[in-house]
Amino acid sequence: MASEITPQLDPARDLQFTRIVPVPPRLVWMAWTRPEHLVKWFTPAPWRTLEAEIDLRPGGIFRTVMQGPEGPPMDNAGCYLEVVDQRRLVFTDALQPGWRPAPTSFFTGIIALEAVEGGTRYTASALHKDAADCERHAAMGFEQGWGTALDQLVAHVQSLP
Amino acid sequence: MASEITPQLDPARDLQFTRIVPVPPRLVWMAWTRPEHLVKWFTPAPWRTLEAEIDLRPGGIFRTVMQGPEGPPMDNAGCYLEVVDQRRLVFTDALQPGWRPAPTSFFTGIIALEAVEGGTRYTASALHKDAADCERHAAMGFEQGWGTALDQLVAHVQSLP
Repeated sequence: MASEITPQLDPARDLQFTRIVPVPPRLVWMAWTRPEHLVKWFTPAPWRTLEAEIDLRPGGIFRTVMQGPEGPPMDNAGCYLEVVDQRRLVFTDALQPGWRPAPTSFFTGIIALEAVEGGTRYTASALHKDAADCERHAAMGFEQGWGTALDQLVAHVQSLP
Repeated sequence: MASEITPQLDPARDLQFTRIVPVPPRLVWMAWTRPEHLVKWFTPAPWRTLEAEIDLRPGGIFRTVMQGPEGPPMDNAGCYLEVVDQRRLVFTDALQPGWRPAPTSFFTGIIALEAVEGGTRYTASALHKDAADCERHAAMGFEQGWGTALDQLVAHVQSLP
């Protein structure tokens, strides 16, 4: 297979942040790819992730059920697009599991990991179809929300025996 | 990486046909994956494929420009989702190149090839978000159109020196 593509980000339509976290790529990857770990950190408190379903291969299901302090559970199912062990995870809600086009879509997410001195360079990207979706995602608190979740991820994996 | 998924087809939302063609998978694959060959057979005459752009890897562009006997050229860009050499090609218009969600989507296509006595078992599938899109695709002549294009593919590769 040819080499991996480098998705082109567009400042008007996409969101991205990079942080160095003090845990190795192996543990970040584990936290993202195993349901029993994902539910521990994926949603910024007081939101909770009630359930996660992960079939870690292109076209495989990535489903989460999240619930806020008020309101009913929100069930989101999409699929993985690319899985590069401990290095890059790409998923979308524009395709349902098995690559079926979804009735509506919001974003494609890319989590990129790179081993660095003292931990992992963690880059999270969200690609949207247009500026309106991008602004909506920013207003929902993309960077703060995903950043808080990342703090929770680090705390979770550091707490493991 | 885990093994490939088997997409679940739904008779109410999806279209599929299988044919045995008298050319080996290697040549069918070449016809699907090289622009100079694709333009020779991709659209049932009198439609023509004016141009094709192919970056054969997950997230890579799959773009065609087609034109009918009347009307302007139609430019369609999507991306590949899975590329398994001479065996399976998956692409969609629900994601633009680089996996960006598309403003609208119509279908995900899967071309599956299997070497059989005398040629290739060729299975083409189209997955849609709902029954309405499926019916629209059927009314556009999915099976007849893709079947005629497949005849053109076979004639093209058989004509090669």
